[in-house]
Amino acid sequence: MTVSPDSRLPAALLDRLAALVGPRHVLVSPDDTASYLTESRGLYAGRALAVVRPGSTDEVAAVVRLCHETGTAIVPQGGNTGLVGGQIPDDTGHELVLSTLRLDRIRELDLESATMTCEAGVTLKRAQDAAAEAGRLFPLSLAAEGTATIGGNLATNAGGTQVIAYGNARDLVLGLEVVLADGRVWRGLRKLRKDNTGYDLRHLFIGAEGTLGIITAAVLKLFPAPTAVETALIGLDSPADALALLGLAQARAGGTVTSFELMARICLDFVLAHIPGTRDPLAGTHPWYVLLEVSSHGGAELRGRIEDLLAEALERGLIADAVVAASLDARAGLWRLRESIPAAQKPEGGSIKHDVSVPLTAVPAFLAEATAAVADLMPAARPVPFGHLGDGNIHFNITQPPGADTAAYLARWEEVNALVHAIVMRHGGSISAEHGIGRLKRGLLPGIKDPVELDLMRAIKRALDPDGLLNPGKVL
Amino acid sequence: MTVSPDSRLPAALLDRLAALVGPRHVLVSPDDTASYLTESRGLYAGRALAVVRPGSTDEVAAVVRLCHETGTAIVPQGGNTGLVGGQIPDDTGHELVLSTLRLDRIRELDLESATMTCEAGVTLKRAQDAAAEAGRLFPLSLAAEGTATIGGNLATNAGGTQVIAYGNARDLVLGLEVVLADGRVWRGLRKLRKDNTGYDLRHLFIGAEGTLGIITAAVLKLFPAPTAVETALIGLDSPADALALLGLAQARAGGTVTSFELMARICLDFVLAHIPGTRDPLAGTHPWYVLLEVSSHGGAELRGRIEDLLAEALERGLIADAVVAASLDARAGLWRLRESIPAAQKPEGGSIKHDVSVPLTAVPAFLAEATAAVADLMPAARPVPFGHLGDGNIHFNITQPPGADTAAYLARWEEVNALVHAIVMRHGGSISAEHGIGRLKRGLLPGIKDPVELDLMRAIKRALDPDGLLNPGKVL
Repeated sequence: MTVSPDSRLPAALLDRLAALVGPRHVLVSPDDTASYLTESRGLYAGRALAVVRPGSTDEVAAVVRLCHETGTAIVPQGGNTGLVGGQIPDDTGHELVLSTLRLDRIRELDLESATMTCEAGVTLKRAQDAAAEAGRLFPLSLAAEGTATIGGNLATNAGGTQVIAYGNARDLVLGLEVVLADGRVWRGLRKLRKDNTGYDLRHLFIGAEGTLGIITAAVLKLFPAPTAVETALIGLDSPADALALLGLAQARAGGTVTSFELMARICLDFVLAHIPGTRDPLAGTHPWYVLLEVSSHGGAELRGRIEDLLAEALERGLIADAVVAASLDARAGLWRLRESIPAAQKPEGGSIKHDVSVPLTAVPAFLAEATAAVADLMPAARPVPFGHLGDGNIHFNITQPPGADTAAYLARWEEVNALVHAIVMRHGGSISAEHGIGRLKRGLLPGIKDPVELDLMRAIKRALDPDGLLNPGKVL
Repeated sequence: MTVSPDSRLPAALLDRLAALVGPRHVLVSPDDTASYLTESRGLYAGRALAVVRPGSTDEVAAVVRLCHETGTAIVPQGGNTGLVGGQIPDDTGHELVLSTLRLDRIRELDLESATMTCEAGVTLKRAQDAAAEAGRLFPLSLAAEGTATIGGNLATNAGGTQVIAYGNARDLVLGLEVVLADGRVWRGLRKLRKDNTGYDLRHLFIGAEGTLGIITAAVLKLFPAPTAVETALIGLDSPADALALLGLAQARAGGTVTSFELMARICLDFVLAHIPGTRDPLAGTHPWYVLLEVSSHGGAELRGRIEDLLAEALERGLIADAVVAASLDARAGLWRLRESIPAAQKPEGGSIKHDVSVPLTAVPAFLAEATAAVADLMPAARPVPFGHLGDGNIHFNITQPPGADTAAYLARWEEVNALVHAIVMRHGGSISAEHGIGRLKRGLLPGIKDPVELDLMRAIKRALDPDGLLNPGKVL
């Protein structure tokens, strides 16, 4: 699905784009476009005809109509925080980057319907803050939330740390507004909790990484803000014990388990060594840790319940030690241990990364098998597994041996991926739990997807974007 | 999208079907097929080439391949409890009814992953019971659950009484197995909470009413069974007060609001008059009632919390009176008042029905406007509104004037629908909140759907069922 724009057109096209969105919003100089053409880790860099920044849905539609007419490929981009290269153009210089950052209005906050209507370019943090100011919760939460946009979050069906209670990004959406490949607009901004009048188009655009349409706005679900939150760091022996603790917590916690994060001891070692101001809140060391958070709309009894839960888990031999945060500061300190892991890996050298998921019950076996396989292949490399155990989602990162040559180590990325992904697939898992496919994993799809499923995906792509102009070369 | 099967084929086709599934499972005699060709209310009756009952996914695939080869249209059918005629063939006698009732295995119950893999023909009640026996909850719950099947529930994205807490049927599914229009099988029975490897096909087949593929099995989510449940019947003055109570309950209840059902006083009048053994649990009468149910995984404190909630609501003037069920029998008695409403309407004569939803905040205005409009049109007719207020879903039923001619009254069905649906659409609502489109509302779609959305639906139908053989004439 490649496109070759009419070679006479670029100059005329830029003029027409400028007429649609204003000359200031058609960026062509390297200085202006640089931040749109590379991503934060420098893994992907591209070229573009221009970066266009429409200021309204109608302007997005006009730009897409023009691209449809001229056969110009479009790469939609939000906050440019994607980790799989989905938001970066290729290196032909023929693609147009369409930035949604000027679509930055929160169109409506409807407390009684518990909805918020946001345009695509609103950052996740702004959406969270707007909900919180109104005494509500928008629960999507992830590391890049200050920069990532709602549009990007939905295009990639973002995950994060509260999926266990509130679901993935797709589960937080009631309605969508989408500009289609031919520039028509699907105005689906519904606020309905129930609507069985035809096919669910919403879930087709969410997670399609801009290959089926460009999301310009969404009706998001709001939740009552919890009135009590308790957070514990728990030391334990094994992922199997952690899984048993999860079951016990869900049965006994007296609130909703809103986070259940697993990390190996080495994660804590790296954080304590490299992140200033962190300290180990437990006296001894343990092979594994769980960061447990429970929220309720009750009150003071939640503290007692989590203490009872931990006492029962201790008595059953599921856990070795635990601390419950006694203050908001202490809670922030526990979360800092978890959230600093990626940063703490960097001073240790290169890391080969995997964003995988398996059925919950398979997590212990996956971790054991993947660790053993990596030890066979690269005995001195250091697995640094952590992730959202409650979702079966493990970031199985492997840091280079101390002192090894980083480039030579990272050159084995695909070999190690193949090894780990084979174990994932044997357990019925996913090789991209929350980051998507983009360019990074596109080549892997034929190896892991049922051909029938790939055919279905291609049939849908052809039906919705017959000319292949929306984010070509991504996903499919 | 009509089909005309090769007229030489029927006899040969029946032989080939018999070879695929066994002669006993190809039903042709009127005695054998009658129960598949009409639905419970007698609104729809059709004819069929045969009713075929495959016993496995492979047999379903073989039947569909044969139909694909011979241009035979297929009407998939589960428990035959649908309310919009989606499961009934047309009257040409050219369509084949494919019953999923023999796909009745619960393939797996995986407690640690909190999943249950069910074939399409398992009844909802059996699925609920299997979960309950394992100490888990499968929360989908609706009146026809003893007969309705999982396949039908998913094909229609069923709703019911716990949607406010657990979502619609589509929200309870992790994976699907689907036989496609050409007889290939999409084996998508994943157990993953997170999987971002391509388009979400699952949500396309769920709610498509068998027009895009035939669901043969699903991986369903299980939940921890609540350890405490409190149920209250509450008398109040208005839907607006009920909505304010909902907000208060979600903020204060100390558990999850699992049901929030609204009913007008006339519902209770009908039930008390016609359903033996029912009694009004409140001393006075009130214009409106709410049946509130709150569940938690805590313990005894839930009772105190719901009493505190009701005391606060009383003090704020939101409610007039309330009773909390003191026993399981009392709880069943309260639910019986709600669930008997449709049965209690029958002795009062014909009812013109609407299954609609609006944004939560619009429910009071919708009810006021629809009631006034009906009073203008038919002053003596009696609106009997009830429904799932927590989902914005109202069953706005209108019972005939006492003593009026039932047939003459029901002849005004479409006129009244048009009136009520126009109000629904003005509030951004849905004319089919939970029952689907089927044949009943197919003709209404062009009037209520954005043409862009209808075009998208048609494009997807063409992509997945190019010959239009799957449940033709339904939905689109």
